[in-house]
Amino acid sequence: MKDFFTLISSSDFLSLLPQFSPLEQEALSLADARGRVLAEDIVSSEHLPPFSRSTMDGFAVRAADTFGSSESETALLTVIGEISMGVSGQAFTLRPGQAVRIWTGGELPPKADAVVMVEYTQCFDDETVAVYRPVAPGENVIRAGEDYAPGAPVLARGSMLRPQDLGVLSGLGVTAVPVYRRPRVAILSTGDELVPPDQIPPPGKIRDINSTTLAALVEEAGGIPIACGICGDELAPICAVCTEALAQADVLLLSGGSSVGRRDFTLEVFKALPRTKILVHGVSIRPGKPTILAAQGNKALFGLPGHVASAMVVFTLFVRPLLRQYAGLGATMGLQTIQAITAQQIPSVIGREDYVRVLLTPQDDGGPPLATPVYGKSGLLSPLVRADGLLPIGRDSEGLDRGIETPVLLFP
Amino acid sequence: MKDFFTLISSSDFLSLLPQFSPLEQEALSLADARGRVLAEDIVSSEHLPPFSRSTMDGFAVRAADTFGSSESETALLTVIGEISMGVSGQAFTLRPGQAVRIWTGGELPPKADAVVMVEYTQCFDDETVAVYRPVAPGENVIRAGEDYAPGAPVLARGSMLRPQDLGVLSGLGVTAVPVYRRPRVAILSTGDELVPPDQIPPPGKIRDINSTTLAALVEEAGGIPIACGICGDELAPICAVCTEALAQADVLLLSGGSSVGRRDFTLEVFKALPRTKILVHGVSIRPGKPTILAAQGNKALFGLPGHVASAMVVFTLFVRPLLRQYAGLGATMGLQTIQAITAQQIPSVIGREDYVRVLLTPQDDGGPPLATPVYGKSGLLSPLVRADGLLPIGRDSEGLDRGIETPVLLFP
Repeated sequence: MKDFFTLISSSDFLSLLPQFSPLEQEALSLADARGRVLAEDIVSSEHLPPFSRSTMDGFAVRAADTFGSSESETALLTVIGEISMGVSGQAFTLRPGQAVRIWTGGELPPKADAVVMVEYTQCFDDETVAVYRPVAPGENVIRAGEDYAPGAPVLARGSMLRPQDLGVLSGLGVTAVPVYRRPRVAILSTGDELVPPDQIPPPGKIRDINSTTLAALVEEAGGIPIACGICGDELAPICAVCTEALAQADVLLLSGGSSVGRRDFTLEVFKALPRTKILVHGVSIRPGKPTILAAQGNKALFGLPGHVASAMVVFTLFVRPLLRQYAGLGATMGLQTIQAITAQQIPSVIGREDYVRVLLTPQDDGGPPLATPVYGKSGLLSPLVRADGLLPIGRDSEGLDRGIETPVLLFP
Repeated sequence: MKDFFTLISSSDFLSLLPQFSPLEQEALSLADARGRVLAEDIVSSEHLPPFSRSTMDGFAVRAADTFGSSESETALLTVIGEISMGVSGQAFTLRPGQAVRIWTGGELPPKADAVVMVEYTQCFDDETVAVYRPVAPGENVIRAGEDYAPGAPVLARGSMLRPQDLGVLSGLGVTAVPVYRRPRVAILSTGDELVPPDQIPPPGKIRDINSTTLAALVEEAGGIPIACGICGDELAPICAVCTEALAQADVLLLSGGSSVGRRDFTLEVFKALPRTKILVHGVSIRPGKPTILAAQGNKALFGLPGHVASAMVVFTLFVRPLLRQYAGLGATMGLQTIQAITAQQIPSVIGREDYVRVLLTPQDDGGPPLATPVYGKSGLLSPLVRADGLLPIGRDSEGLDRGIETPVLLFP
């Protein structure tokens, strides 16, 4: 072994990520902006609603005209017309004792300050309506600007745009939004033993699994995967591919083998690239110990374990937060965590964090699900297919007993 | 009021959805298949790994040659060569007393049945290695086919494809997968008062909010939104647009106003369409009571409330499960539910289910978050922007006290 790892903790690793800056912004139409992150605060430039609206079908009135009315003593008002949907209410000005028929969403006429629901009225003829319940000023009305007034904050920089947020923006006439550019992530698998998935591997070789898995993980995390294919274990060609990849990408994910020699090799590659600084060489987690992080300006280079199960843990814990950092969300995992009950004892080792793949089984009583470890040799794929998430065990713990309630990170 | 609603419960509504069949299948490359749903079982057609592989750097041996070895009494073996990465191990056949240098992932030579980790060996010269710890047969080896043998089930029909699943498929050489087609969802807003979001509304009119919100909800739920724009409140033109929309879509979402007249109007539209059967006219939920569901063959027509907040609840409870049903996932909401603590008393009414918008606030002690209702007049949008999810209150409940632990449906 040439280099021993200087291991850092996962929290120390995460604390390095804010040194990478969010990417520049671009303007997108609302139809393309779902799930993207606002790069600027959005402030309303107008009144929403633009006019005072009825929230009920009924009659627009001066509230004072209804005071004291009841089933036995109705208030009789003169109906001076109807405000059809989409027509301005400004055509009428309500005098005392008058009412105008109005529909949900209709514009209140001047001097009207409330709406009586149709259920509490009775029409004697086209011109007279009896009101048998009083309304307070403002009742059944949304005032102009009650939702958003000019200058009111609508959404803050760093918000991920959800359907309802896009709806509100469309209501305010904001049809394009400034969002952070999505990170472009180059993915390179290295190893003399690898062939592309569409080939039949000759003796001694296997198909590349990491490229497909990492591309889907990148996409799920909001990045744009760039497939760089497979490179054999020779320094000069790998360096050339890395240089080319970094010219068009914000992040490079290089996954090498799990052999000790191969790990050192990835480090050599990163050291050979210009203006590249090694930030991390080894993390005290399992799986994922031989993770490497380097920086070239604002670009990040990851050396990931060769086993796909380990690479996936490292992606979840570190690459995903970095992609979120670039996208303006901050260097957080952004995964759902749920409480689960350990179905069996799960041993661990003091001094490192364990991330145990678990299968979750709902319990009949509606309580937290049972978390069963899905063990298997580290090169096996089938346990990964059966797992629902990762159960973290802290570095100061020797393991968890059976029946303990503990958080589980759900795979997205 | 012309028609009174015959209200059904939300569970009765959901039980109607399985009458719609999953859509036909299409073949996709792995790069396009993330989040899609398998339309057929996938069975392995080969051995994975294709050969017995080492899981460590070290020496491939006959395990029996190491039995009894220790630090004081090492087993001396003759090194007959090295299996480089990507090179077949078949070039060597191990005789008793022999060892071959091997790397993680390398192919075991014939007659080797275990690997000794390099850490437990010492090389005296190029041809002799001392082993000072015994290995059992099979130790540090993944057998050919140990992950998947020919005929082994890999993924079941109805599975949503995750990154790790795609990785396994690529390892097995499956580069295209049969998945259910994504549902195409036509979205039509009706109302004389509506203008498109890019226009400045003249007096009495407002911008269409539902089209933008529903398109993003459809996309998030895995459907393909088809924008049909805005239609005024006239029967013949709306029917024409609906007919045209249904020619290319699997689902039609028609959102009308919230006025009683407008509700009946949507029903009239659906009744006027050919071969269209009304399945639901009113649901005992709040908001969302005036929901309509109709079927035209295997196509579904929804009449949604005009208020976007109500339309979003109906989408979450009913449209999303239907899109999942079409996509092969079954008629379930598929949303994450978390436990939360009510921050205040939340009143409800016997006989209907309430879906209360809530804001979730994490608690310092790491326990379940606090759920605070985000009340507001039903036409307001700002409460929707502040909410994180929906808190259901059952139809037999008069409400929830403060401090009660209860599930909250998280907005996706």
